[in-house]
Amino acid sequence: MSKTLLEPPSGWNRRHLLGLQDLSVDELRTLLDTAQQLKEATNNCREKLSLLAGKTCANLFFENSTRTRNSFSLAAKRLGADTVEFSSSGSSVAKGETFIDTAKTIEAMGVDWVVTRHQTPGTPHLLARELSCSVLNAGDGPHEHPTQGLLDILTIRQHRGNIDGLTVALVGDIAHSRTARSNIWGLKKLGAHVILCGPSTLVSHRWRELDVEVAYSLDEILPRCDVLNLLRIQFERQTTRPFPSVHEYANLYAMNADRMRRSKSDILIMAPGPINRGVEITPEVADGPHSVILEQVTNGIAVRMAALWLLANAPHNSSSSEPIVH
Amino acid sequence: MSKTLLEPPSGWNRRHLLGLQDLSVDELRTLLDTAQQLKEATNNCREKLSLLAGKTCANLFFENSTRTRNSFSLAAKRLGADTVEFSSSGSSVAKGETFIDTAKTIEAMGVDWVVTRHQTPGTPHLLARELSCSVLNAGDGPHEHPTQGLLDILTIRQHRGNIDGLTVALVGDIAHSRTARSNIWGLKKLGAHVILCGPSTLVSHRWRELDVEVAYSLDEILPRCDVLNLLRIQFERQTTRPFPSVHEYANLYAMNADRMRRSKSDILIMAPGPINRGVEITPEVADGPHSVILEQVTNGIAVRMAALWLLANAPHNSSSSEPIVH
Amino acid sequence: MSKTLLEPPSGWNRRHLLGLQDLSVDELRTLLDTAQQLKEATNNCREKLSLLAGKTCANLFFENSTRTRNSFSLAAKRLGADTVEFSSSGSSVAKGETFIDTAKTIEAMGVDWVVTRHQTPGTPHLLARELSCSVLNAGDGPHEHPTQGLLDILTIRQHRGNIDGLTVALVGDIAHSRTARSNIWGLKKLGAHVILCGPSTLVSHRWRELDVEVAYSLDEILPRCDVLNLLRIQFERQTTRPFPSVHEYANLYAMNADRMRRSKSDILIMAPGPINRGVEITPEVADGPHSVILEQVTNGIAVRMAALWLLANAPHNSSSSEPIVH
Repeated sequence: MSKTLLEPPSGWNRRHLLGLQDLSVDELRTLLDTAQQLKEATNNCREKLSLLAGKTCANLFFENSTRTRNSFSLAAKRLGADTVEFSSSGSSVAKGETFIDTAKTIEAMGVDWVVTRHQTPGTPHLLARELSCSVLNAGDGPHEHPTQGLLDILTIRQHRGNIDGLTVALVGDIAHSRTARSNIWGLKKLGAHVILCGPSTLVSHRWRELDVEVAYSLDEILPRCDVLNLLRIQFERQTTRPFPSVHEYANLYAMNADRMRRSKSDILIMAPGPINRGVEITPEVADGPHSVILEQVTNGIAVRMAALWLLANAPHNSSSSEPIVH
Repeated sequence: MSKTLLEPPSGWNRRHLLGLQDLSVDELRTLLDTAQQLKEATNNCREKLSLLAGKTCANLFFENSTRTRNSFSLAAKRLGADTVEFSSSGSSVAKGETFIDTAKTIEAMGVDWVVTRHQTPGTPHLLARELSCSVLNAGDGPHEHPTQGLLDILTIRQHRGNIDGLTVALVGDIAHSRTARSNIWGLKKLGAHVILCGPSTLVSHRWRELDVEVAYSLDEILPRCDVLNLLRIQFERQTTRPFPSVHEYANLYAMNADRMRRSKSDILIMAPGPINRGVEITPEVADGPHSVILEQVTNGIAVRMAALWLLANAPHNSSSSEPIVH
Repeated sequence: MSKTLLEPPSGWNRRHLLGLQDLSVDELRTLLDTAQQLKEATNNCREKLSLLAGKTCANLFFENSTRTRNSFSLAAKRLGADTVEFSSSGSSVAKGETFIDTAKTIEAMGVDWVVTRHQTPGTPHLLARELSCSVLNAGDGPHEHPTQGLLDILTIRQHRGNIDGLTVALVGDIAHSRTARSNIWGLKKLGAHVILCGPSTLVSHRWRELDVEVAYSLDEILPRCDVLNLLRIQFERQTTRPFPSVHEYANLYAMNADRMRRSKSDILIMAPGPINRGVEITPEVADGPHSVILEQVTNGIAVRMAALWLLANAPHNSSSSEPIVH
């Protein structure tokens, strides 16, 4: 049931996974190849490997996220590591402790990775400078969500073999989306043509500076797309800015049976979830043969296993958390 | 400390445990025999067996339940499985995801069992149709709570050897009680005479259609009872219906020292807990020699270990959760 | 990765760890020596030992405490035990169950230790009388917090080799502090001179009855101190009593660069955390070379591993939780 066959890939030197913007093409490929290898070695992410036995993964989440938090926990457990959960409510942060002090305290308990989500962009980067254990960004405000980008790209690669030359549209709420940003960096590096598509209130033309196409009509770009990644409309993040109503949004941007008929015959339909059925996607599309939404979830375990394993095997992962007293 | 001596019982074919109403007498006996065997093999549910190592059990609870949730988790851990907790608050359900999508997402993370509690009767049955992993009902509204029924019956069987011919009274809040329903189905199948006893606001005469006795006076039936199962008055479920006051209820239905004197000398006193001391049971009875309340708790671990093990070994437990894309 | 080299120390007979006041000097030394041994055997509390494999530790916390709760959980996991979490919110206590019934129910699920925190002094002692499993006090109101006392003393001992003859000042909110009480008992038994220092609203002169020095000026005692333990000002516990403002407190009692210059050259700066930077300690002191605050956190894992291991190996740890029925 528990196997230790695999050797860690050589050539990986990073101790932290903060975003896809920083990664080289080789590093991206190592992450994806390792995820693929671990997925296969664990029977589709269902069996355990004792690659990381004895190690401990701490989740330090300052935003609610059952799904991503549990995906990291399960990935850690599948490789034999223990997990421990910290959250903002009821924690020392509520008693006046600084974020850095909280993280250093967790590190001093002997953890090997801190997985963190925070509403402020750059928080994981700050932690990475302060901690000697590995830091994984599980979402920093609208900035990056690297494992989400990786699982999306891994899913595409499993179906198409290659990313190079594909046209991938990210549809919906680009403005608030760390998923969009991580996808853009990763997809561009691997040679995809990326289209950002949504209402002008949510997709600024200034994104073109990143060498991506910006489109306001899904129907116009649809025939050219190999992949659609339907981002969730994050109602909870929209307070003051104008926005099309849910009904208007669904009319203009929801993938439905009619739009499927006007798509390429081998189009892949993706969504990071949780999906709003009837808003960005209709049930017949979500549950149809082109949907790979649940495969994305399984691949989330695979890329998180890969990230934990690679970071744990990075050289110079010094873990002395104790200050020196004469 | 960790042993793998046991062989899974043959003849078990179910992938889900949704209720006791559906089960055959043979299936009930297999569950009880397996629970007894596992209880003994684990030194009264205190030691671990690696029967389910490498597997993962997900708790998906939509009602608060520390006790049942932890009992399932401990049962899974005692057999070597990992556990993961999902709850309604802070989860994707709060972000607009449907219940089925939440469950399918959890399944796609590679779990082997989903243990679920929900206020709506039939919810686990719906999940069982949609998921390919095993579903265990941990309480669906007032409908069924099969592991509670099994642990109650196992406790009786440990003391009396047999259920056939015993007179078992379920006392109290029958109307809101899934525990009552699961007990009725299980006890009747195994040959017990079942009496439902409580105030008429909580025990309808229409229950007689299920071939059980309905009584409104505990004092009248008391001399005939081999077992009393004192259900908790679920104050939190009663909003508008008339009800005797707590004081009136205790006068008429509480087991106390006086009623113990008018009972059979070998009567068993059971309660699913958490108990309200002074309401349905007085402290001298709860802590007295006829009370098997804490044995019920231990047997809860035993029957949940049995259910997890049997379902995991059911044939055709196909677990492909991924849709096929050309 | 997982080793079982160590033998349990002989001569330990207690099944519970309720406070440091009760312990003999020999028992204190056994706890400290065992913690030191386990810390070294686990590479500074980072690796696992299978000393307690198959056992289960239950956390039963009635006050929020992510830090102490996780420290106990990690200590249990590092020695191979499983953990299970109970809390007051959403639990059976909210449904009217008594505290003792909750604890007995948890015990009947087959746990080996109950770690408990409660706002009422004496609660763990009550549990210890009612349960047959081991009880560990993780804080009972302002009364005791024995593992905090132990980790503070272990940290001092690691730097000074011995406690005997040292002058240790506990500074700040003595009135509300279980940490202060546990430190006083432990430090006095091991031969330290203890000074309690803080504003008169928080440090009563009546503490002198315990054979400790009471001082109201930090500046006066500072040159004599080998160790300062800077207690957190527990704003959340102060409702009606008069108190210096935060600004006044910081002026009079905060350790800052100026006070460091007037201290012994080898002074140790400790704080149980979470620290309020700028209140009881300034950043340059908290992060400076004399600060051992993060070592305290690591030592918390060590002393909790030691306590769990020693209690589990105490003789006569009978664990029959079941009442006897004819």
